[in-house]
Amino acid sequence: MSEVYAARRARLRERAQAGGSQSALVTHPANVRYLAGPAPQDTVLLLGKRDDMLVCASPLDERPAEGRPDETLHIHTLPSPGGDPAVAAADLASANGAESMAVEEHHLTVTRHRALRSVAPALRLTDIGGAAEQLRVIKDEEEISCLRIAAEIADQALGELLESILVGRTERHLALELERRLVDHGADGPAFATSVATGPHSGRRGHRPTDRRVEEGDFLAVCLGATYRGYRCEIGRTFVIGTSPADWQIELYDLVFAAQRAARESLTPGAAYRDVDRAARQVLDSAGYSEGLAPLTGHGVGLEIDEDPQLAPAAMGKLDACVPVTVEPGVHLPGRGGVRIDDTLVVRPEADGGPELLTITTKELLAL
Amino acid sequence: MSEVYAARRARLRERAQAGGSQSALVTHPANVRYLAGPAPQDTVLLLGKRDDMLVCASPLDERPAEGRPDETLHIHTLPSPGGDPAVAAADLASANGAESMAVEEHHLTVTRHRALRSVAPALRLTDIGGAAEQLRVIKDEEEISCLRIAAEIADQALGELLESILVGRTERHLALELERRLVDHGADGPAFATSVATGPHSGRRGHRPTDRRVEEGDFLAVCLGATYRGYRCEIGRTFVIGTSPADWQIELYDLVFAAQRAARESLTPGAAYRDVDRAARQVLDSAGYSEGLAPLTGHGVGLEIDEDPQLAPAAMGKLDACVPVTVEPGVHLPGRGGVRIDDTLVVRPEADGGPELLTITTKELLAL
Repeated sequence: MSEVYAARRARLRERAQAGGSQSALVTHPANVRYLAGPAPQDTVLLLGKRDDMLVCASPLDERPAEGRPDETLHIHTLPSPGGDPAVAAADLASANGAESMAVEEHHLTVTRHRALRSVAPALRLTDIGGAAEQLRVIKDEEEISCLRIAAEIADQALGELLESILVGRTERHLALELERRLVDHGADGPAFATSVATGPHSGRRGHRPTDRRVEEGDFLAVCLGATYRGYRCEIGRTFVIGTSPADWQIELYDLVFAAQRAARESLTPGAAYRDVDRAARQVLDSAGYSEGLAPLTGHGVGLEIDEDPQLAPAAMGKLDACVPVTVEPGVHLPGRGGVRIDDTLVVRPEADGGPELLTITTKELLAL
Repeated sequence: MSEVYAARRARLRERAQAGGSQSALVTHPANVRYLAGPAPQDTVLLLGKRDDMLVCASPLDERPAEGRPDETLHIHTLPSPGGDPAVAAADLASANGAESMAVEEHHLTVTRHRALRSVAPALRLTDIGGAAEQLRVIKDEEEISCLRIAAEIADQALGELLESILVGRTERHLALELERRLVDHGADGPAFATSVATGPHSGRRGHRPTDRRVEEGDFLAVCLGATYRGYRCEIGRTFVIGTSPADWQIELYDLVFAAQRAARESLTPGAAYRDVDRAARQVLDSAGYSEGLAPLTGHGVGLEIDEDPQLAPAAMGKLDACVPVTVEPGVHLPGRGGVRIDDTLVVRPEADGGPELLTITTKELLAL
C-alpha cells in the first residue's frame, strides 16, 4: 500500500505547488487516512517539498485495531500531551524553511488557523480547498472491493433481520440489533447511525429511532451501512408489516421504486450530477410529490458516508467511472409514513455492464 | 423550560454586548441545545438585541424524537435546502440593522467565516470565544438530575454484564451488548463509543474494541456511558477474569484505586483543577509510573462527554459547586495491560456531604 499512499500524496503535492505553496497541511481525518493510512485521532499530515511527515498527538500503539499508517512516513510525536499537532506541523514547516503552506480552510477553525499564523508568522498560509476530497472521488479497485465487502455485510445483517419477528419491537431495538449483526459479520462498525422508521415515521431521511413499536399495517423503513477497512456503504429498504399491503402503500412504493430505478439507470460516466437527481425527481414530481422531497437524490460514499459528488438539483459536474454513489429517493406523507429505497452503486461504462449494484437485497415490496 | 433557556440566552447576550457586539451567532451544536433546547442538526441560534431566532436548514418534524426547541423562539427555515443556516443568520442580522455580530471562532471554519463576511460585508464579526461553554460549566439541579439518571442507566448496564459469562467473548461484542443494555434501560444512546479492553489492551484510555476474546487471567477494563435527555455520564471499571488475581494485578489495582480516591477526595469547591490532577498523579508518580500517563485525570461532562473543565497539569482555574466531572486515572503496562477506574461525580461543598458520586458500581477488585 505504501506506493498507493505515496502516489496519492504526490498528486496532492502537485496541486499545492500549482497553487504556489511549497508545503501542505492536511487536517481533515478522512483525507489524512486516504493519504497516509490509518492513524490515531487528531493526527495531521505535513507534505513537504519532498518528505512528508505525520504529526501525532500521542505515540502510536504497538498494534492499533485500525491498522498502521504508511511506514515510509516520518512520524513526529508531540513531546507533551495536549498540544495541537497542526500547530506543531506549522512550526516544523517553518523551521524547515518553507515560506508557504496550503491548509484546508474548510476544515480548520478560525481559532486554529490563527494559532498556526501565530506560531509561524513568516509562513504564508494559503487554501488548498477540497483538493484532497476531489482526489478521493474516483476510487481504485482496492477501495471498491472494500465497499463491496461493506455492502455484503449490510445485506447480510438486513437479511437476517427480515427472518426475525418484527411486530411489537421498538425502532431503537431493531436499530441496535442491526448494528450488532453488522459487527457479527465483520464490519469495523456501522457506517452511520442506523435508521429504523415505523408507521408515520417511515420515509423520512435520517429518522432517528424512537421507542415506537412495529405494528401490523406499518411501513417499516430501514437504512443502515457497514464500515469495512474504513470504507462505508449504505442500503435502505422499505417493507410492509402484515399479510398484504394497502393500495396506497403499493402505489407509493411503486412510485418511489420507479424514481429510484430511473436514477440508477442514469448512472453513466459523463452524466451530469443534476441529471441523475432530475431523473428521480421527475418521476416523483409528475405524481404530484414535488413538495418536501429530500434536497438530494444521492451522494458519494467512501471513507466518509457523505462525500462528493452530491446528486442534487444545483450540483455542478459529471460522473466518472469508478465513482460509488448512493441512489436514495423517498417520499414521506406527514402523519401516514412513506417509502425510501437506497442503494450503493459504482458508476461503470456500459461496455463493462453499466452501474455495478453493491447492495443486492431485493427491492420487491416484501410483506413481513 | 422556556424561562431557563431565556435566562441562559440573556447571560450570553450580556457577554456579547460587553464585548461590544449587538448580536451573537451560536453555531456549536451543544451550545445551541443549551440555549434553545433540542433542535434539528445544523440549526444555529441568532441572539439579537432583544429577539432571538433559530435558523434551521429544514422544517421541524411534527414530533421529533429528541424533543422540541424552546417554543418562544422565532424560527426561520431556509427557503431552499442545501444552504448554510449560519450564512442566512448573518444575512438576517445585517438586514435587521446589526452592525456587529459575535461568532464562535473556535467552531466556525475559515471557509464558513469567510462566507459570513461575504454575505454581510457591513457586519463586523467579533469572537465570542468559549462564552457559551463557560456558562455550561456549572449545572442546575435539572441538569444534574439528568446526569444522575444517565449514571444509573450505565450502572445497570454494567451490572448486568457482570452477571453474564465473559470468557471467550470478543471486546467488540461486549461493547455492543453494553450499548444495547444502555438503550434497554432508557438511554437516548451511548454517551460515547463504549470501550472494552482485555488483557494487554486493558488500562488504555479510549481503547477501541477489537476481536480479541476475554481469557482467563485477563484484566478486563470497561468504559461506558449513557446519554439521557442529552446529558452524558461516564463510568469505567477494571475486573480480573478467573478465580484469583495475580499479585501484580492486585498491586496495580490498589495503586490506581488509591490515585483515583485521592483525586475524588480533592474535589471541593475552590480546589484548583491542576491540584485535583496532581492528587492522582502524585500517587502514581511515587510508585514509579510517571511515564505514559494520560494527559488528564478527568474532565467536565454534560451535553458533551468532554467539556470544561480539564483536570490536567497545566489547567488554569478552580472548581465550583455543581460542576460534574470525571475522575479517571489509569496505568497501562505495555504488553501486560493495566487498570483504569473512572467515576462521574458532582462537586458539592463539604456542608452538603462533599462530592456526590453518580456512578455507584463497586470499585472493589472483582474476580469474574
